[in-house]
Amino acid sequence: MRTQVGIIGAGPAGLLLSHLLHLEGIDSVVLELRDRDYVQRRVRAGVLEQPTVELLRAAGVGTRMDAQGLPHDGISLRFDGADHRIDFAALTGRRITVYGQQEVVKDLIARRLADGGDLRFGVSGVAVHDVGSTRPLISFTDADGSARALDCDAIAGCDGFHGITRDSVPAGALTVHQHTYPFAWLGVLAEAPPSHHELIYTYHPRGFALHSMRSPSVTRLYLQVPPDERIEDWSDRRIWDELHTRLAADGFTLAEGPILEKGVTGMRSFVVAPMRHGRLFLAGDAAHIVPPTGAKGMNLAIADVRRLSLALTALLRSGDERLADGYADACLGRVWRAQHFSWWMTSMLHTFPEHDPFQRELQLAQLRYTATSEPAATSLAENYVGLPYSD
Amino acid sequence: MRTQVGIIGAGPAGLLLSHLLHLEGIDSVVLELRDRDYVQRRVRAGVLEQPTVELLRAAGVGTRMDAQGLPHDGISLRFDGADHRIDFAALTGRRITVYGQQEVVKDLIARRLADGGDLRFGVSGVAVHDVGSTRPLISFTDADGSARALDCDAIAGCDGFHGITRDSVPAGALTVHQHTYPFAWLGVLAEAPPSHHELIYTYHPRGFALHSMRSPSVTRLYLQVPPDERIEDWSDRRIWDELHTRLAADGFTLAEGPILEKGVTGMRSFVVAPMRHGRLFLAGDAAHIVPPTGAKGMNLAIADVRRLSLALTALLRSGDERLADGYADACLGRVWRAQHFSWWMTSMLHTFPEHDPFQRELQLAQLRYTATSEPAATSLAENYVGLPYSD
Repeated sequence: MRTQVGIIGAGPAGLLLSHLLHLEGIDSVVLELRDRDYVQRRVRAGVLEQPTVELLRAAGVGTRMDAQGLPHDGISLRFDGADHRIDFAALTGRRITVYGQQEVVKDLIARRLADGGDLRFGVSGVAVHDVGSTRPLISFTDADGSARALDCDAIAGCDGFHGITRDSVPAGALTVHQHTYPFAWLGVLAEAPPSHHELIYTYHPRGFALHSMRSPSVTRLYLQVPPDERIEDWSDRRIWDELHTRLAADGFTLAEGPILEKGVTGMRSFVVAPMRHGRLFLAGDAAHIVPPTGAKGMNLAIADVRRLSLALTALLRSGDERLADGYADACLGRVWRAQHFSWWMTSMLHTFPEHDPFQRELQLAQLRYTATSEPAATSLAENYVGLPYSD
Repeated sequence: MRTQVGIIGAGPAGLLLSHLLHLEGIDSVVLELRDRDYVQRRVRAGVLEQPTVELLRAAGVGTRMDAQGLPHDGISLRFDGADHRIDFAALTGRRITVYGQQEVVKDLIARRLADGGDLRFGVSGVAVHDVGSTRPLISFTDADGSARALDCDAIAGCDGFHGITRDSVPAGALTVHQHTYPFAWLGVLAEAPPSHHELIYTYHPRGFALHSMRSPSVTRLYLQVPPDERIEDWSDRRIWDELHTRLAADGFTLAEGPILEKGVTGMRSFVVAPMRHGRLFLAGDAAHIVPPTGAKGMNLAIADVRRLSLALTALLRSGDERLADGYADACLGRVWRAQHFSWWMTSMLHTFPEHDPFQRELQLAQLRYTATSEPAATSLAENYVGLPYSD
């Protein structure tokens, strides 16, 4: 088998890359360990920044997003029992769109299949070879059990933080930066209408809480918990009680409903540099992880593959290496901006076991300032809605 | 002896309070341990924020400041060997004025003496009594050796961080918040024209450096050093060499000159709450210390005594306790804003021995963002030039 770009991973990054390359006349094959149904149901990120929305729309895969996504013109910071709205539209002229990652995935799969794309679900034993050459190879086993070798001109590692591509790079070729936070998020998906029409980021002395949503009938809620928290220790009743306590505010009533899913996710920051080794290019979570507080993970992945599609098009169409050579540095500027923003939001909104009373007061001072200063609120807003792509 | 307000400390806070009270017809006595010459030469802060300048001008003590102060419309952030100017005037319509604390002190002493004020230098053995009553007392020994008792209606503790007034409050009545930074500043005053017309805040892998000035012929320079650094280990040559290294930038030449003064100052944040106990009111460094990075110390002291003069006027003229009761909380809002800003500037510009590579990259990401985002630069600027007094 042969293709121009072998793409490992059928998340938003891999699927969008395949689609963007197709628009440029570049052929690709997408390999995914899970089955199609699984990736189409996997609930992950849910906030699209404006550059993401515009990119999906321009790429012709925004129709359902535009019809069903929930445009939000702001968020609220809740502390001291009161809400302080950050009005994105007024401050920046831009907005976010709440639209689940799995919906983006569904749209991209449908479009790739309609365009005759080669998406292979349920593959196994994926390994990459000869990435230092101009003719790298992916070996894998198809869902039907057949062993395959896929000759490529380039490979895109879009297989997430736990994928195999990053680890295929020889030791020492990548520099890792990482940071682990002293807490995790307990997340629930509830069959209940959102209790407020926008996201509410809450700082409470007992810990952070987030009110979010996936649709007009499904609420997404998060609680800061210790990093080693066991989900078994959290009955639905205990979760609701804690949410009621942390989210309490004048005039706010949290609507309960059946909990459809619950789980605990650790919080970390992670960056590898460069995001390329020979003809292997890393994109999205395979190269970097942000804490979810700034809602940047999927948006960064999409910014990466936008840039990667341009770089691979120049490389494969005309042998022009310049964009490929600049790929990692160009991505990493945005990645570090998002890392800083995500760290900043996380630091402002969570409680830290090691903080002394001075540091807790500083945190409140920062919240009060962000809520009342137009430049400070605009700074939050411009990061949240997504800074323009630099080129 | 009797006065309405006994003021301990003839720094900017105590002297300005005495003057502001005089303008309201309230009588005061100012007691100072040092002699007049010492306080008029003591080089400390040198940056006046715009609300400070406007207050001094409105109080009729701004003539020499307006003639000799150096108005600055911005500062530079220097990192990666290049300057990034923060244009205060363009971003906020406001500016700062470089004018030494000792000059403010000279102007205030001259004015108080011209107005017949009772300023007593070189006193000793100052102690406060009965601050829980409405008739507190200050005992002290005059410069000529005579023991005195000063009956007051209220006492203002403007005697700095190492003064006696804060410690006169019974244990448990004040809550202390503090934070110590893992470095100090080595400061020098040099007989050399400034090498640039504005302040340059430099982040360098070897540590922070600051280029500042006190006049067209005197440069003020600082180097981040370990907290326990001994000034004896720093020859003038070593100081200049380190300054040249850290301040290096294209097109910049650091002018050398005889070093007039040098010293090492620790960096800490400190806040006591409330800033009042009965009829004893604390103001300025007696109540709070900020790291010097944000140039907020003297400005906070002046904001305190502005508010205290209003509170004492209402209290002593008409027995209205409301402003006195609200004094601490009203001051502390501005104090915590300044603490956060000072911590933020400090965190962005210094190297931290405990930082891992991830944290160093975050710091650079923050510098790059602050230097290139208009809202982020405006946020720095509005804090630096001084947020308006809240009432």
